[in-house]
Amino acid sequence: MSFDRLIEKIITLKNPTVVGLDPKLEYVPEFIRQEFFAQDGETLKAAAKAIFKFNQAIIDEICDIVPAIKPQAAYYEMYGHYGIKTLEQTIRYAQLKGMFVITDGKRNDIGATMEAYTNAHLGGVKIGETECEPFGADALTVNGYLGTDGIEPLLKVCEEKDKGIYVLVKTSNKSSGELQDKLIDGTPVYAVMGDMCEKWGSGQIGKYGYSSVGAVVGATYPEQLSELRKRLPHTMFLVPGYGAQGGGAKGIAGAFDENGLGAIVNSSRAVMCAYKKEENCPEQDFAKAARREAERMREDITSYINLK
Amino acid sequence: MSFDRLIEKIITLKNPTVVGLDPKLEYVPEFIRQEFFAQDGETLKAAAKAIFKFNQAIIDEICDIVPAIKPQAAYYEMYGHYGIKTLEQTIRYAQLKGMFVITDGKRNDIGATMEAYTNAHLGGVKIGETECEPFGADALTVNGYLGTDGIEPLLKVCEEKDKGIYVLVKTSNKSSGELQDKLIDGTPVYAVMGDMCEKWGSGQIGKYGYSSVGAVVGATYPEQLSELRKRLPHTMFLVPGYGAQGGGAKGIAGAFDENGLGAIVNSSRAVMCAYKKEENCPEQDFAKAARREAERMREDITSYINLK
Repeated sequence: MSFDRLIEKIITLKNPTVVGLDPKLEYVPEFIRQEFFAQDGETLKAAAKAIFKFNQAIIDEICDIVPAIKPQAAYYEMYGHYGIKTLEQTIRYAQLKGMFVITDGKRNDIGATMEAYTNAHLGGVKIGETECEPFGADALTVNGYLGTDGIEPLLKVCEEKDKGIYVLVKTSNKSSGELQDKLIDGTPVYAVMGDMCEKWGSGQIGKYGYSSVGAVVGATYPEQLSELRKRLPHTMFLVPGYGAQGGGAKGIAGAFDENGLGAIVNSSRAVMCAYKKEENCPEQDFAKAARREAERMREDITSYINLK
Repeated sequence: MSFDRLIEKIITLKNPTVVGLDPKLEYVPEFIRQEFFAQDGETLKAAAKAIFKFNQAIIDEICDIVPAIKPQAAYYEMYGHYGIKTLEQTIRYAQLKGMFVITDGKRNDIGATMEAYTNAHLGGVKIGETECEPFGADALTVNGYLGTDGIEPLLKVCEEKDKGIYVLVKTSNKSSGELQDKLIDGTPVYAVMGDMCEKWGSGQIGKYGYSSVGAVVGATYPEQLSELRKRLPHTMFLVPGYGAQGGGAKGIAGAFDENGLGAIVNSSRAVMCAYKKEENCPEQDFAKAARREAERMREDITSYINLK
């Protein structure tokens, strides 16, 4: 009913970062791809299996130093139902290793349908008399364009099952301002959406002061990060756009409160593809290179904040 | 590179409606559920198989009178990767029967990730040297909150593969106005989003005057439907909210142009569950009841418009 579970992991590991698992097939080392192509040909099935092996190895290497992973649903849907099976397996494997899992799906719909997404990704589905958990992630990213009744089903499951959501507020991409920066009675759309997050979360505030309703705010907009940190005191931020997209640790510091809490910063490609960037790193060491980049990122981010 | 393929089907069948396949398991007749529970127990797999059988039967009954189906992704994700396999099978089966398929996924993300969603749902994915089509739908619903760079990858595939998208503009739910009705320099957010659709589609206008970029506008807001029809002359509307959600055919008429084109109206539950509503309809006749409701809906909608 709040982000306490995640925040406790962040405090324990002294690491407010999350590794995004957005595994394009080209990120997976050739020797893994070839292993599964040999078994199943150049198929969606082979691709999905290769990706699971890749994810597992990275999770094994980072689970003792990084509190959470963020699989991006799009990169699993790319491989059809085989890819979705890999998403399910990745979520369960990471949880087994003690990690918190944020599915990045940016789901949104009207109430009745949002209930289906909620049950799919965070809750449970009743089949006859049997309760099944299709994905069972710990948190889900969502889009609030449809307003309160598209969020309510999520709030119910957040409360009942101790889960969380992150609502898109100010996204990291270049054209995010086309709508999000437009003014409504002098207030930018992103702040209007942020205020809704505060309202939605108001009944579910945990012991660190943050509710189960977080906000996605891009690292590429440091001014808005600081402004929103002040405006939304109970809303935890998920911050994409660090590294590859150009957001620096210094600018990101504004996303955190005076205790170094209130945000978690994502890096995807830089961690997954660290082995391609390191000099003389053999493909086989891809997971160790990922760990080194995750450590480097932790040091970089924590050097600017007050996390104890 | 436009909605011409869909519009031609609408003209041929004299029917501007689409049947939403949002198959909650409780909509599936008991005898079908029991058949698959007997095989696979009360599992996600059994549920997903039952739903595919249900969908097939409805498609068989309506494919000669209804131009399109609209599977709602949430109701497939509810059954995990088994459900996603059913979504793939449903899309292919409907296309084999000559129907146009709109996947209702309301997907959205930054450019690079939106490219993954685009390739998954509308385009193709390269595995080694082999091109695979994970879903291969004809159109996809999307959410434009992230602006142009979250739409561009879709436009490219719309042009190359003759596909379409529907962007959320004014949704059918009660709280849609919380953000969508707010004014930006005197213009409601939904109209600002509508104007973006016109712009995004401007390079891909087909012979009926409509581009590959459509808009979702709810049947529950007839005034906005008429207003947006005038404002967005090249944007085809996907209109949810007819029937079960309360939108009437008379109010919907404003979504159409003077030739009875420019919109397609969705009904989901009323068609799928027609057998529950008809007096003395045996469960076994669920698909025939669905056809009768689809016919009734066609007559209702076309009685108010000028489709020749």
